[in-house]
Amino acid sequence: METYLYAPAFERFITLLIILNAITLGCLTYSYQDHGPDSPLVQRLLAFDMAIICVFVVEIVLKIYAQGFRFFRSGWNIFDFLIVSLGFLGGSYPLTVVRSLRILRTLRIVRHVPSMKVIIESFLRALPGIGSVIMVMMLLIFIFAVIGTSLFAPVSPEYFGDLQSSAFTLFTVLTLEGWPDIAREVMPIIPGSWIFFVSYIGINSLVILNLMIAVIIQSMQKEYDEHAEEEREDILAEVRAISARLERMANSPTNK
Amino acid sequence: METYLYAPAFERFITLLIILNAITLGCLTYSYQDHGPDSPLVQRLLAFDMAIICVFVVEIVLKIYAQGFRFFRSGWNIFDFLIVSLGFLGGSYPLTVVRSLRILRTLRIVRHVPSMKVIIESFLRALPGIGSVIMVMMLLIFIFAVIGTSLFAPVSPEYFGDLQSSAFTLFTVLTLEGWPDIAREVMPIIPGSWIFFVSYIGINSLVILNLMIAVIIQSMQKEYDEHAEEEREDILAEVRAISARLERMANSPTNK
Amino acid sequence: METYLYAPAFERFITLLIILNAITLGCLTYSYQDHGPDSPLVQRLLAFDMAIICVFVVEIVLKIYAQGFRFFRSGWNIFDFLIVSLGFLGGSYPLTVVRSLRILRTLRIVRHVPSMKVIIESFLRALPGIGSVIMVMMLLIFIFAVIGTSLFAPVSPEYFGDLQSSAFTLFTVLTLEGWPDIAREVMPIIPGSWIFFVSYIGINSLVILNLMIAVIIQSMQKEYDEHAEEEREDILAEVRAISARLERMANSPTNK
Amino acid sequence: METYLYAPAFERFITLLIILNAITLGCLTYSYQDHGPDSPLVQRLLAFDMAIICVFVVEIVLKIYAQGFRFFRSGWNIFDFLIVSLGFLGGSYPLTVVRSLRILRTLRIVRHVPSMKVIIESFLRALPGIGSVIMVMMLLIFIFAVIGTSLFAPVSPEYFGDLQSSAFTLFTVLTLEGWPDIAREVMPIIPGSWIFFVSYIGINSLVILNLMIAVIIQSMQKEYDEHAEEEREDILAEVRAISARLERMANSPTNK
Repeated sequence: METYLYAPAFERFITLLIILNAITLGCLTYSYQDHGPDSPLVQRLLAFDMAIICVFVVEIVLKIYAQGFRFFRSGWNIFDFLIVSLGFLGGSYPLTVVRSLRILRTLRIVRHVPSMKVIIESFLRALPGIGSVIMVMMLLIFIFAVIGTSLFAPVSPEYFGDLQSSAFTLFTVLTLEGWPDIAREVMPIIPGSWIFFVSYIGINSLVILNLMIAVIIQSMQKEYDEHAEEEREDILAEVRAISARLERMANSPTNK
Repeated sequence: METYLYAPAFERFITLLIILNAITLGCLTYSYQDHGPDSPLVQRLLAFDMAIICVFVVEIVLKIYAQGFRFFRSGWNIFDFLIVSLGFLGGSYPLTVVRSLRILRTLRIVRHVPSMKVIIESFLRALPGIGSVIMVMMLLIFIFAVIGTSLFAPVSPEYFGDLQSSAFTLFTVLTLEGWPDIAREVMPIIPGSWIFFVSYIGINSLVILNLMIAVIIQSMQKEYDEHAEEEREDILAEVRAISARLERMANSPTNK
Repeated sequence: METYLYAPAFERFITLLIILNAITLGCLTYSYQDHGPDSPLVQRLLAFDMAIICVFVVEIVLKIYAQGFRFFRSGWNIFDFLIVSLGFLGGSYPLTVVRSLRILRTLRIVRHVPSMKVIIESFLRALPGIGSVIMVMMLLIFIFAVIGTSLFAPVSPEYFGDLQSSAFTLFTVLTLEGWPDIAREVMPIIPGSWIFFVSYIGINSLVILNLMIAVIIQSMQKEYDEHAEEEREDILAEVRAISARLERMANSPTNK
Repeated sequence: METYLYAPAFERFITLLIILNAITLGCLTYSYQDHGPDSPLVQRLLAFDMAIICVFVVEIVLKIYAQGFRFFRSGWNIFDFLIVSLGFLGGSYPLTVVRSLRILRTLRIVRHVPSMKVIIESFLRALPGIGSVIMVMMLLIFIFAVIGTSLFAPVSPEYFGDLQSSAFTLFTVLTLEGWPDIAREVMPIIPGSWIFFVSYIGINSLVILNLMIAVIIQSMQKEYDEHAEEEREDILAEVRAISARLERMANSPTNK
């Protein structure tokens, strides 16, 4: 797919750096708490992290220099570029959030482990088929959130106080987590509200079932097409050979 | 499938109105709480909602006028008709419920987004196959609810007080949500009641597994039939061509 | 499959009685609580239930009389026989349990509704394939229950007090319900006990995944075999017709 | 697969011993609690357990003596060897843990029950395909654990206090168990933290869906390959017979 312009040794070095960076950032979470942000250990770990990110920047700059604009044609390159760039924004965003996102650099490892790369790529290929099911689920959450807020806001302000609370509550109900508690809070006061919950869960279960099947069918069809194609080609080749032989036979006696 | 008698521009206009209507009704949930039902903002939003519903009514009247009785042959048209009609009942039902159901008009968007329409239509086609499984599940809930009420009503009035409470409790157990708490309330008092819960969960898990498989098999069969049909046609066409050629060969020498 | 020796009208009458019986027993749960077990309403409902069970007994006696020993060859007949017999045991078992099991007679409806009958029969056919997976799960629960009791009994007597408590707890963990609460009770005292829970959940998830796949594959194979068989027969018939024609052609010129 | 060098009667004897051992160890959990570790009943059960383990040791020694180094080529033999060896370590590990692991000897039963053996073997064959999905999940848990610890440690020390707490919390969220409680603890203090939970659950649901599909596809492909192969062979054999007959026909007239 993509041409690497440097030696495999360099690539293995980058893989090692990514793993070292993950370990460094993992250690940082402990040292922050145990020694405080200004302790020499934290300072040294941060310096090491900075050194690694510098290598990453150099790596990407070299690759852009070597490949020019073609660099940005590979999705994995764009991903690397964005992940490494993350380390340089900061400014207006709260510092802890930006800092915590440094760990996303570990995701770069996926590109360097072939078995993981296969999973992520098959995953990304399946996304478009999933996309419209997720849109339907978001539409359902929106509709039920508006109904839920209108009906239950005075009864259960914690769960249905406003539109975004209702939407979050309905997302938790989507995972079925703790929904009976929510339902039992509302049901004694508003009769018939069980219809709201049962229909929401019923519809969503069927939509999720649909999602699963859509993805299974899609994967199987691809698998099947490849195999069936091959099988058909085998039989057709045999049959066509017979056809050609017949052709020759049909022609030869008339010529005689 | 269905012929639209007006320009695509008009259809796009209706799609826009549906989205605007969804936003309006979403905003209404906030303004109701923040400004009260009689504030000018709420009044203006309600007026806008009324204007949109008027356009919807005009749209449907025009369509019925143009298509006559054929209008009601399309399921989507009947759906539009019912959804828009919802806005006009009220009277005896509690006002908040009727009002909250206005948001169902947003479901009309599904018809105008092809990828969503495909999902909903495949979903509706799968329903009949699911129907009898759901009937079996409702039968199971009924039977276990009667047993549960008879045995556990005095011990756990909250969960098994009467038949509808038991049925709701058993629906929550169907989603596995919080069932150990319910079981642990009953088990110390009535020995052997774990059999009730374990058999209910066991049977239902297998029925749900059955449901999933029924839907998967159904979807795959359709998929497979299409592909296999095609494949078979390819091979059969080739084979029949040979057959026809043989026929000609068999006839030509005897004519000679 | 089985020959009915009486008219469809009689069968429809039995179906009606089963439904009436279900309604009667449903009503009984309410009247017991509202009016007490000796109220005239309860007495009348019980008498009606007794009348219905008498008809069922007569039905089965007639069927056994007509079909002789063949009656017991049909699984559905044996099922009917057992379900109706349930009403006559009592004696040593606690009365409320026996009474509550009367509702199982409603299960007889399954035989009279074809779409339900299909589901139950396909369900029973799938059971043997599931059986050994369930045996593996029970073996896992037993092994983890022994380990859990040995390690956690002093720490968490409620959940791991003795072998059957541990087995029930591990069954609830199998449904994933409330397992973090159980784990968090044990983990601060016994370090490394997270390995117990994580490995149990991990192994069981994979076994359940295996169970699902076993059933899906089994169902699909049957489906596929039927279709593929048909398809192959179509192609083979065509191919054999050609073969026969060739045979005739090969013979006719030599005869000439 | 493997040759048993002793009579089936001996194998049946070993199976019986495994079951007796399981019962003994199950009884031990009760007698420990009821009578204390030094009671005569416990002593007798322990002696019986020791006797059984001696038979197992003799069995394995005999098998190694008979089969030599070939013994260690069978995975099941290595498994037996490790499981029985477990009884002899002890020393540095805490005694209760080592003792509780004795029950793992019951796993030996799997080898002696063919239907269980099939499941475990198909399960082990599926593991490599699952392996890389589990690696992706562990990578996700690590990344989210580092982010979660950085952001939420001061707010929710119980759930996100340090890296391993966060990792365990995120494993519980993976099973969806109790996640709304965890999220609601953090969300009022750190705005936007719902993104953390919703994205974690969303990504993981899709990865698990992917895992399921990977295993289903893998199992089906093997199933399908076998059947399709057979079917193709049938048709190809027929077609090749025709081809051969044509060959003969084409040759015979020219010879005439």
